[in-house]
Amino acid sequence: MSKEIPYKIYLEEQEMPKEWYNVRADMKKKPAPLLNPGTHQPMTLDELSGVFCRELAEQELNDTDAYIEIPEEIRNFYKMYRPSPLVRAYCLEKKLGTPAHIYYKFEGNNTSGSHKLNSAIAQAYYAKKQGLKGVTTETGAGQWGTALSMACSYFDLDCKVYMVKCSYEQKPFRREVMRTYGASVTPSPSMETNIGRKINAEFPGTTGSLGCAISEAVEVAVSTEGYRYVLGSVLSQVLLHQSVIGLETKAALDKYGIKADMIIGCAGGGSNLGGLMSPFIGEMLRGEADYEIIAVEPASCPSLTRGSYVYDFCDTGKVCPLAKMYTLGSGFIPSANHAGGLRYHGMSSVVSELYDQKLMKARSVEQTAVFEAAQQFARVEGILPAPESSHAIRVAIDEALKCKETGEAKNIVFGLTGTGYFDMYAYAAYNDKKMTDYIPTDAEIAASLAKTPKF
Amino acid sequence: MSKEIPYKIYLEEQEMPKEWYNVRADMKKKPAPLLNPGTHQPMTLDELSGVFCRELAEQELNDTDAYIEIPEEIRNFYKMYRPSPLVRAYCLEKKLGTPAHIYYKFEGNNTSGSHKLNSAIAQAYYAKKQGLKGVTTETGAGQWGTALSMACSYFDLDCKVYMVKCSYEQKPFRREVMRTYGASVTPSPSMETNIGRKINAEFPGTTGSLGCAISEAVEVAVSTEGYRYVLGSVLSQVLLHQSVIGLETKAALDKYGIKADMIIGCAGGGSNLGGLMSPFIGEMLRGEADYEIIAVEPASCPSLTRGSYVYDFCDTGKVCPLAKMYTLGSGFIPSANHAGGLRYHGMSSVVSELYDQKLMKARSVEQTAVFEAAQQFARVEGILPAPESSHAIRVAIDEALKCKETGEAKNIVFGLTGTGYFDMYAYAAYNDKKMTDYIPTDAEIAASLAKTPKF
Repeated sequence: MSKEIPYKIYLEEQEMPKEWYNVRADMKKKPAPLLNPGTHQPMTLDELSGVFCRELAEQELNDTDAYIEIPEEIRNFYKMYRPSPLVRAYCLEKKLGTPAHIYYKFEGNNTSGSHKLNSAIAQAYYAKKQGLKGVTTETGAGQWGTALSMACSYFDLDCKVYMVKCSYEQKPFRREVMRTYGASVTPSPSMETNIGRKINAEFPGTTGSLGCAISEAVEVAVSTEGYRYVLGSVLSQVLLHQSVIGLETKAALDKYGIKADMIIGCAGGGSNLGGLMSPFIGEMLRGEADYEIIAVEPASCPSLTRGSYVYDFCDTGKVCPLAKMYTLGSGFIPSANHAGGLRYHGMSSVVSELYDQKLMKARSVEQTAVFEAAQQFARVEGILPAPESSHAIRVAIDEALKCKETGEAKNIVFGLTGTGYFDMYAYAAYNDKKMTDYIPTDAEIAASLAKTPKF
Repeated sequence: MSKEIPYKIYLEEQEMPKEWYNVRADMKKKPAPLLNPGTHQPMTLDELSGVFCRELAEQELNDTDAYIEIPEEIRNFYKMYRPSPLVRAYCLEKKLGTPAHIYYKFEGNNTSGSHKLNSAIAQAYYAKKQGLKGVTTETGAGQWGTALSMACSYFDLDCKVYMVKCSYEQKPFRREVMRTYGASVTPSPSMETNIGRKINAEFPGTTGSLGCAISEAVEVAVSTEGYRYVLGSVLSQVLLHQSVIGLETKAALDKYGIKADMIIGCAGGGSNLGGLMSPFIGEMLRGEADYEIIAVEPASCPSLTRGSYVYDFCDTGKVCPLAKMYTLGSGFIPSANHAGGLRYHGMSSVVSELYDQKLMKARSVEQTAVFEAAQQFARVEGILPAPESSHAIRVAIDEALKCKETGEAKNIVFGLTGTGYFDMYAYAAYNDKKMTDYIPTDAEIAASLAKTPKF
């Protein structure tokens, strides 16, 4: 089969996936279960249902059904911004002079600016279906909060976002997008919660942290009638929803008879790469095909490449269940000069287990090299990429340049998770040559890991 | 013909237009020519070629060829972000409870965030082809400057942008996007030009104006070897390039057997609406079909609805040729509370002449009503629209609500020119209920019009 490949491959609406793919069903050794932080026993459905919507809790625990139907209401919302294009990077290939064929799945063509909306709409749908009044969540830079605001607005659900105070003050644009969609946005730590008041009393003038914002959001969810907490990454349910990225990518490649050689994705909590690679990993698990899969993480927050595979807290506040994952320790905070996103201390249990089974590789890259790739990409492909996504661009370019040396025409597929329109301070630092790199020392990582729970 | 209409109609790559459509060729009474401001005689090709690239000057004067080939290099660039989707606004229709079918042509899925890129890439291409070193331009909020930076980066041309000083300082994000694409961005008035130094001396501490930035950009273009000046709207060449919007829209409608009843577009300088409506107007001019076409402008800058159809200066600095157009006078400046874009004092000669021939209508709307429509649209259709585009949304919603009363199932098509991600200060004012309206008095408009040239 040999068709001329367009710049952008769009599936037809009727070719969009009708089911999510649950990679856990094809894993012989399953990801380790979430544990109750008090008892160290696996979280039960009832325990999870106190924090999450019932159906989402069921999805979180479901490691046996390979396919789960996407409800029609969610599919209709997907139709507003999906299918996303699989783009052949003709201009980048030409610029690099590589024989490789480079493809990227672009998830940034929606107002949240990223793939986060794929799971936000699912989580809002199940909350609405359960008859809840609203949901709570935390957000750092604001991508996830924006996606959730959009989803809640669509289903007429209340949305309470706890936004890390320094981002709330420094990134007023994201905040206003959320407010435009009707969300309430509260700087964290606030004076509205016990944990917020406690932290404000202990650390007067603190500008907050994601861990603290999570704790506030969870406290409000479990103490307010008709509310549940939602999370934008890390969880297995989120990776399930994000499988729509990989399923569309696979369908688009199949449509043109293209066999991917490499799949590259940035990895913070793991939701994007987990979703992108899932149908490909599924083929590997079933012995049907082989792919080289690469997770790319920041050198300043290298959970897969330098972390340990142990049970750890998911949040700094230690209110969430324990997860077995590659982690740098829940107290690990990337150095202050780190502008490139992907700052989570751990990695999704699914991605961690697949990595431990050596079904995929990981690579860490420094941020100035990431922004160099981002700028190069922007100038030839037009799209100004998110710093997170640019980690994948860096490695895709590196691999394409290797192909130039070897003469191999590999098919390289990477995930372009989003746009960088709200990250211009980071670009400004790069443009002004003020961006620096930092790689944590072994001692720093060891000190942080020493605080993981022992049992 | 009756096919189920998807949420988004994407043309195939091979269905994209290969020629621009030049509506002037089908006009019996042509738009009035540009005049030399010194002699009041029509600008010659040689005169225009001192300021613009030769081929663009030819296009500016060409009112006889109905179709002009889009060079392959431009078509290849178009393929990176075009065809843009024609979206069926199912969710908005449902929310409004209208029997009308609403479609919008969405031009915001590129990093410039708007339709401006369609002409920027053409202008950069012709500059490169002529062997020029670079181009100069002005930008206010930065949409046009961003588009031009992207285009120049692609063709490896130098790009000098004079950005109105208050925007330069208040909108650092747009500035950084331009710098990321390699443009030099200078706050205007600068100390680099005669006119800039003169204005800075006369008005110390001035934060600049678009008129002043135009004058600086033109001065640098005509006094620097290998440079020309480019402009993002108003000119006939720009409307020609923007015809790609209308051609794609027409092709997508035809593909599904849909006959538009109304075409609605926002109008500042006229480039978006001029491009969107051109093939439809062409059918009207040739007596093949009839459409209701509505230009929507801000009540605070109402050139079509309250201006005069006379020769006027295109810029406040009075260095550009004179154009016959609906104008409020080149010294007209919308009131300070105006946040919604579309602040140009005049209107493209092509649009002006078509309006004068009563082939289209115009309506003005107030900005709080515009932002109300923007928010309503964002909440159901997902996309956060640019304030400019939201003028068209306002009227599309008004017309759809009229259909609800009459029971008519009209096909309403509007142009969604871009996204509002860089306009969050305006959204914040709306969210905080601090946005106000202003309608200029008849006396204010008369006073401004009194200063148009008399001859």
